[in-house]
Amino acid sequence: MLVVMRHGAPESEVQRVVETIEEMGYTARPMPGRQRTTVGLIGNDGRVDGSRLAALPGVQELIHVTKPYKQVSREWRPERTVIRLAGGLTIGGDDVVVMAGPCSVESERQIIEAALAVREAGATVLRGGAFKPRSSPYSFQGLGTPGLALLKKAREETGLLLVTEAMDETGLELVGEVADIIQIGARNMQNYALLKRAGRAGKPILLKRGLAATIQELLLSAEYILAEGNPDVILCERGVRSFDTVTRNLFDLAAIPVVHGLSHLPIVADPSHGTGHRDLVAPVARAAIAAGADGLLVEVHPHPDRALSDGAQSLYPEQFERMMRELRPIADAIGRRVAEPAGSRA
Amino acid sequence: MLVVMRHGAPESEVQRVVETIEEMGYTARPMPGRQRTTVGLIGNDGRVDGSRLAALPGVQELIHVTKPYKQVSREWRPERTVIRLAGGLTIGGDDVVVMAGPCSVESERQIIEAALAVREAGATVLRGGAFKPRSSPYSFQGLGTPGLALLKKAREETGLLLVTEAMDETGLELVGEVADIIQIGARNMQNYALLKRAGRAGKPILLKRGLAATIQELLLSAEYILAEGNPDVILCERGVRSFDTVTRNLFDLAAIPVVHGLSHLPIVADPSHGTGHRDLVAPVARAAIAAGADGLLVEVHPHPDRALSDGAQSLYPEQFERMMRELRPIADAIGRRVAEPAGSRA
Amino acid sequence: MLVVMRHGAPESEVQRVVETIEEMGYTARPMPGRQRTTVGLIGNDGRVDGSRLAALPGVQELIHVTKPYKQVSREWRPERTVIRLAGGLTIGGDDVVVMAGPCSVESERQIIEAALAVREAGATVLRGGAFKPRSSPYSFQGLGTPGLALLKKAREETGLLLVTEAMDETGLELVGEVADIIQIGARNMQNYALLKRAGRAGKPILLKRGLAATIQELLLSAEYILAEGNPDVILCERGVRSFDTVTRNLFDLAAIPVVHGLSHLPIVADPSHGTGHRDLVAPVARAAIAAGADGLLVEVHPHPDRALSDGAQSLYPEQFERMMRELRPIADAIGRRVAEPAGSRA
Amino acid sequence: MLVVMRHGAPESEVQRVVETIEEMGYTARPMPGRQRTTVGLIGNDGRVDGSRLAALPGVQELIHVTKPYKQVSREWRPERTVIRLAGGLTIGGDDVVVMAGPCSVESERQIIEAALAVREAGATVLRGGAFKPRSSPYSFQGLGTPGLALLKKAREETGLLLVTEAMDETGLELVGEVADIIQIGARNMQNYALLKRAGRAGKPILLKRGLAATIQELLLSAEYILAEGNPDVILCERGVRSFDTVTRNLFDLAAIPVVHGLSHLPIVADPSHGTGHRDLVAPVARAAIAAGADGLLVEVHPHPDRALSDGAQSLYPEQFERMMRELRPIADAIGRRVAEPAGSRA
Repeated sequence: MLVVMRHGAPESEVQRVVETIEEMGYTARPMPGRQRTTVGLIGNDGRVDGSRLAALPGVQELIHVTKPYKQVSREWRPERTVIRLAGGLTIGGDDVVVMAGPCSVESERQIIEAALAVREAGATVLRGGAFKPRSSPYSFQGLGTPGLALLKKAREETGLLLVTEAMDETGLELVGEVADIIQIGARNMQNYALLKRAGRAGKPILLKRGLAATIQELLLSAEYILAEGNPDVILCERGVRSFDTVTRNLFDLAAIPVVHGLSHLPIVADPSHGTGHRDLVAPVARAAIAAGADGLLVEVHPHPDRALSDGAQSLYPEQFERMMRELRPIADAIGRRVAEPAGSRA
Repeated sequence: MLVVMRHGAPESEVQRVVETIEEMGYTARPMPGRQRTTVGLIGNDGRVDGSRLAALPGVQELIHVTKPYKQVSREWRPERTVIRLAGGLTIGGDDVVVMAGPCSVESERQIIEAALAVREAGATVLRGGAFKPRSSPYSFQGLGTPGLALLKKAREETGLLLVTEAMDETGLELVGEVADIIQIGARNMQNYALLKRAGRAGKPILLKRGLAATIQELLLSAEYILAEGNPDVILCERGVRSFDTVTRNLFDLAAIPVVHGLSHLPIVADPSHGTGHRDLVAPVARAAIAAGADGLLVEVHPHPDRALSDGAQSLYPEQFERMMRELRPIADAIGRRVAEPAGSRA
Repeated sequence: MLVVMRHGAPESEVQRVVETIEEMGYTARPMPGRQRTTVGLIGNDGRVDGSRLAALPGVQELIHVTKPYKQVSREWRPERTVIRLAGGLTIGGDDVVVMAGPCSVESERQIIEAALAVREAGATVLRGGAFKPRSSPYSFQGLGTPGLALLKKAREETGLLLVTEAMDETGLELVGEVADIIQIGARNMQNYALLKRAGRAGKPILLKRGLAATIQELLLSAEYILAEGNPDVILCERGVRSFDTVTRNLFDLAAIPVVHGLSHLPIVADPSHGTGHRDLVAPVARAAIAAGADGLLVEVHPHPDRALSDGAQSLYPEQFERMMRELRPIADAIGRRVAEPAGSRA
Repeated sequence: MLVVMRHGAPESEVQRVVETIEEMGYTARPMPGRQRTTVGLIGNDGRVDGSRLAALPGVQELIHVTKPYKQVSREWRPERTVIRLAGGLTIGGDDVVVMAGPCSVESERQIIEAALAVREAGATVLRGGAFKPRSSPYSFQGLGTPGLALLKKAREETGLLLVTEAMDETGLELVGEVADIIQIGARNMQNYALLKRAGRAGKPILLKRGLAATIQELLLSAEYILAEGNPDVILCERGVRSFDTVTRNLFDLAAIPVVHGLSHLPIVADPSHGTGHRDLVAPVARAAIAAGADGLLVEVHPHPDRALSDGAQSLYPEQFERMMRELRPIADAIGRRVAEPAGSRA
């Protein structure tokens, strides 16, 4: 850490910083500059909590050099995390995994129809929400537990794996009994009680980036899960808040290679929430694969014009099928391949 | 709601929109324009979930005219909500309530010393965290339940009311037994399970604006609490995310009059998190009062250079005292007054 | 346009809105709703300036349905604009055009070396700044006119076309004599005097998106150029401001398909400014092509560690060469091809 | 400056950084840490252009400690700049200067009527645009030179000083002949050709913050003007881009004390553009004064419902008059006073 002193800070203030650093158990190295003095703090293993230093007279700013996360970093573990799921599917290796399905589970007929359609087109994981976080208390909040039962049925009929969201600690328990991957939504990315529980869930966690979370904060939230003992975290870029309302969110494509540089964890892309418009899903999905995403999370509805939520961003099955055909040569071009459904893997 | 059709959308697509609106139980009013047709949806009492319409062929965009929230709005209740606390203190009326204290409860000595200092300077509510949401799992997370006991002691010794944060459902129970006002933090603004519980807590809730939440989303989160039966919600502006890192957050001053225009709920300002720098707290606090804020939430620490968190933004007791002296004439200038501590009110 | 009245606005205020709309020469269609009345304004060909209406008592909000731009829109001209450059190169058709070179022209040796390297790897246009907009008056501002002479020389030696930036009206004249494409930088995207001149320059214009410009504002700035008679505008996505400083800018990938949906103009991507880090340039470039970008603008320097500006984001020649090899199969996968250098086209 | 090396960077790479720093004429001080080595660059007077260092192998990041601006900084000149205008008015001292008037000059009658109204209420400077930057080429662009003549007339009739915008170099010449203060608009904050001209204009410059400019960038743009010899720069906070569209811009109140901390230049607030809604202008204006702003720039129109631009954010004369009455006690409360019109000063 670097402690930057104010211009003209007297020697006594510099001295007090040095003493405080030493009291904290580290080594201080003052560097007098022409404009101001800076004091290096050396000997820290992880990130130092600089509250005490920041509050000292004459201190202008603290600059952190050490990253605040550990276990999620490449420096902690250089080789990539490969998550193994039922049926031999892996996330984080060479395969690109496509998870698709409706925003919400609405009925048995709808979810089965959706599952069959996405499997037919080549998806390997079925998505679908039973518990839905909605900005308004008056919007459709999902079917709840009966929705989970329908998802289970869809898995039995199609062999697809399941990813679905848990919104609170009780829900996490219920979802954990059914899902192959438990999703933590963007609004809960810093719900630390939930993250800690997810760290003890014994199932892979798909952690979505918060609406205005930095990549560092996303990694820190993943660190909460790893710190509780669960190494299987899949990050998800789903767009961030922006000043331009032409898209629902601003899809941060570069987050994919940035995460791959900083962390060993896999990262998938959600082009549906990332854009909010059906017409933009395929180009953004292609781009995410070209940038190295380990998978996709895509909203597909058998009848988007009858969807109870997110109709505008859900693909028609035939659009999804076309998109899947476009993705394969792009995955090939960068030396990866789109994972095939269980049936085809046989 | 207004359904905007694409340029050149054929009559058949317009017709299908009209029929769908009628199926949904509303009245449709098509308006053919020079560039495109728009279809008005009339007869809705609250906001319509437009998923089905958005997904119809030829539909370009939905424009909502009706606000999605109800009970929090001025239109639902024109007169301001005045929240009555123990000892006759009110929030939302003419009084401006100052809540002050350290970021975290650290020890009995620290919290008592802080409480005495802020009461001396004129605060009426003591703030201090027992449960602390921290981005990193390795940062100090608060004293937990013993911290609540220390807060209780501080209230007994000083007569100050208490505001402190609950981070999850269990914590809410514990905090509710001790606090006069239960705080829901920015990172939990859209933790709907927690909001629903807060709606049944039987205590006033101080709801902080999320890091990148729109004012409409803040009001919708408050609506979750009111919808469960708790009318006593105090909103809190604490700055939002910005591209400029010179301050910790970008304090959105205009949120104060915007909320007063849209809602009957009181709103207080947190200039400490809103700026992140001790030197900026007093000018921003003065500004918030001048703009009509119903109170302040300010970090004050007896020894900021020994604080375990947020040292850089905590005021020294003498700075807080000076700030309080500056605030009074400003409150007077707009026809309000800074609430006096219980002792002085006698 | 839709005029939304306040809840409870009396009939007289609605009447005044209707009369004002009629005075303005349009038709008014009031729609009484349950919560509030809205008044549709019909009969406008382009966007209406609503200042007068916005100021009327009882008016809460104006909602624009008509887009404010004309000539740049798909509705004005459904087929894509294909810009024809010297030597048969086209932008906006099936070819994907790669423009590459150093941030600044620094010396004859540097620019010739760079030009040979990028041509060798397959670029068809040489980029390089003679006039450099710098945040600080004390940073290197470019070689100016002598830099233009060096660019001209590089073109003579390599057959590459030239794109270079003009920062003011005088510069535009000078650049126009040398460049094949005149660049208008992000900071000047709303320099209307410069845009109008560019509209009379008789050369294609590459218009970069402003640091926090919406796509609509980018299109409106292009409209300034078309309105003066120059139809050859190439838009450029180069990232926007964000709260996350891990990258220099936040590359808005979805801008590519959004622009292709709204406008007939071509759009290229600048992954160098869009990320600010050499390691991120190739993945973002691949993604841009996969999303349908009509070309790339990439910083390549023969010796990045001796660059006078933007060293951290400049590719080494061998990195550029590798990137070009990765791009070709991706372009193929979506039915396009990377344009070949003049020599190879023979 | 601090050069942060990658984790595990070999000694040879550290050595090359040290050598490059020494080649650049500075002193290098390596600091080996547990996670990574950092190298301090010492001996620089101003900010170092680190392009060469950033490009070296093994370098992860550069951290600037020295501020990139000089003459505008408090460290260069500790005492505040006080700008002296005709008639004894000063900006930057104890007086708070209110500049008010319509967005655009529309007619002789309009501007005279506006000038009389704002003087009556206590403004000392008349604002009004003759040249208007508009996003769309089809919007009203101002009266141009005849507008300047009308402003001159308004000054003769009322004794008010004039502030009006110049959009390009030709306009700056024309405006300079008439205005007491030349305004550079937000969209031109980084139009460096215009800034350099403004540095030679011989008149005070009011420089508005760009739509997404950091405070550091605002100060750097002011530095361009000072570097050309003009010390009389008034900065202006007018709101920045945000994700929340409830206001036109997000007024960054804290920018006022931040600028006062970093620079000796005065800063005024524009609550009209800062909010975009008439009802928010007075509370934000009061707040700006409470936070220490050196003045205000406010849109007032004799008949907002007939304004050719910005009708929704223009105050009615009686609203302005009420606002002026509210401001005076707030200025008093912080030891300042609202400047009185020339007549009253006699």
